[in-house]
Amino acid sequence: MAPSDWLLLCRTVRFGDTDGAGVMHFQQLLRWCHEAYEESLERFGLKAGEIFPTQARMPAVALPIVHCSADFLAPLVCGDPLAIRLEPRRLDTGSFEVQFSFSSGEKAAARALTRHLAIEAASRQRCSLPQPINRWLEASTLGTIQPL
Amino acid sequence: MAPSDWLLLCRTVRFGDTDGAGVMHFQQLLRWCHEAYEESLERFGLKAGEIFPTQARMPAVALPIVHCSADFLAPLVCGDPLAIRLEPRRLDTGSFEVQFSFSSGEKAAARALTRHLAIEAASRQRCSLPQPINRWLEASTLGTIQPL
Amino acid sequence: MAPSDWLLLCRTVRFGDTDGAGVMHFQQLLRWCHEAYEESLERFGLKAGEIFPTQARMPAVALPIVHCSADFLAPLVCGDPLAIRLEPRRLDTGSFEVQFSFSSGEKAAARALTRHLAIEAASRQRCSLPQPINRWLEASTLGTIQPL
Amino acid sequence: MAPSDWLLLCRTVRFGDTDGAGVMHFQQLLRWCHEAYEESLERFGLKAGEIFPTQARMPAVALPIVHCSADFLAPLVCGDPLAIRLEPRRLDTGSFEVQFSFSSGEKAAARALTRHLAIEAASRQRCSLPQPINRWLEASTLGTIQPL
Repeated sequence: MAPSDWLLLCRTVRFGDTDGAGVMHFQQLLRWCHEAYEESLERFGLKAGEIFPTQARMPAVALPIVHCSADFLAPLVCGDPLAIRLEPRRLDTGSFEVQFSFSSGEKAAARALTRHLAIEAASRQRCSLPQPINRWLEASTLGTIQPL
Repeated sequence: MAPSDWLLLCRTVRFGDTDGAGVMHFQQLLRWCHEAYEESLERFGLKAGEIFPTQARMPAVALPIVHCSADFLAPLVCGDPLAIRLEPRRLDTGSFEVQFSFSSGEKAAARALTRHLAIEAASRQRCSLPQPINRWLEASTLGTIQPL
Repeated sequence: MAPSDWLLLCRTVRFGDTDGAGVMHFQQLLRWCHEAYEESLERFGLKAGEIFPTQARMPAVALPIVHCSADFLAPLVCGDPLAIRLEPRRLDTGSFEVQFSFSSGEKAAARALTRHLAIEAASRQRCSLPQPINRWLEASTLGTIQPL
Repeated sequence: MAPSDWLLLCRTVRFGDTDGAGVMHFQQLLRWCHEAYEESLERFGLKAGEIFPTQARMPAVALPIVHCSADFLAPLVCGDPLAIRLEPRRLDTGSFEVQFSFSSGEKAAARALTRHLAIEAASRQRCSLPQPINRWLEASTLGTIQPL
């Protein structure tokens, strides 16, 4: 498995993503970022239930977003195919960020960033990143994969 | 306090609620319904944390929606003021429904319905409606209020 | 191309689709329906820009949803894979509906319905369904495909 | 009318704004920003239809967001009341930004920023800000209001 398998994703702009100007409403981009991050973890081999809290199970460590930003470079309309490139990067033992580049055909469409902090779900105190996330960050940065 | 205080609400159509056709995207109406239901409970005097699960507290009884429907009667555009009328109704000891009528000025804009089932959060087995919800249903139906 | 190519679709429940109860928030299902309808048209060979208005182009005929409903049969959590089956059906010369069945593994998760009316975008008067939509409805119903 | 009338707004966190962690899902904050910006213009006396495109009318000038960012300072749960403070600021003749501060009780909850560019809707070329937006920016900055 090569990093491009989990760091280069696709989606299509849908009608409900657009607003009365007929172009993608800015806020949807942040939703796409989080969904791409989830899909990346999944393709790398991590189960959603290990990382994200559900009705059935609350992981010991939560990874809330503490900062995000986005730059909108070109309008996107319903039906536009998107390529999404992710660049995850560890910041320190308890946080990481992901840079996202969105392009449609030859056109650079948008860039975005999310920054995540590891906290203990129970106490909301800072803690170390969970091992599965560390493996994903290392494999993504080095371009090599540790065995799962 | 008269029932109209918690059964007649207002909101405004926002730009992000519209799609590329320049009118409200159908799915937003269901969001408005749930937000109106929450606001109604709040105005009646119930705290959100008593009814809805949060990071801090999981109420013993959950009230998931098991059915919803909507009829769209007229297009709504950004800036349209809405009046929302709620008609809650108990169906049996463990379920209720809410009918919503949306109008903008003289124009009937949409109708919708949500049906809720009481379940124990832990087991997901059917159970009786929580007392605060019963009080809200009774006061809404009778037009009289029991003391909280 | 067999009808299952455009009438049987997949998606995964994402974290932002869930609410504080740790399960899919009901309103998201309606978004998934519209996105599945768009993906179905696209797989059948229709371009989004022919059907849906964008900043660049307003098709002569709009297909607003006039009615929708949904039944929720089982909770869905983050990471659940979904199979979505669409059954489109023409109602008369100017309207159609789509039934959606959502399942996750062996579990039937939800059913939904959207009903669409053809109107002239300029006058908002009722009109006939556009030919591309008719072809999609016929091929979906008959299980055979007319050449595009 | 004092600037606080259109620069200090309120809303309540709703259940559908939260995710499986039981706290507000990050992306909702950006929606709240745009809705607060719309409400601010409305309270200042500008009609939505003058500023935002709808099915009925496309204003000559569009104001797309070209950049946004957000910092999340504390978790927000369903039912939390929010005070939202807006600080709009002209950047040059064709662009402006709005800073948003969200607090809940004594707690600073989040900060955000949106940056908007004026473009001609037809050509998508840069142009000057519309006069109504200039009046809102001036009155917001100076703390005094020009007659509408």
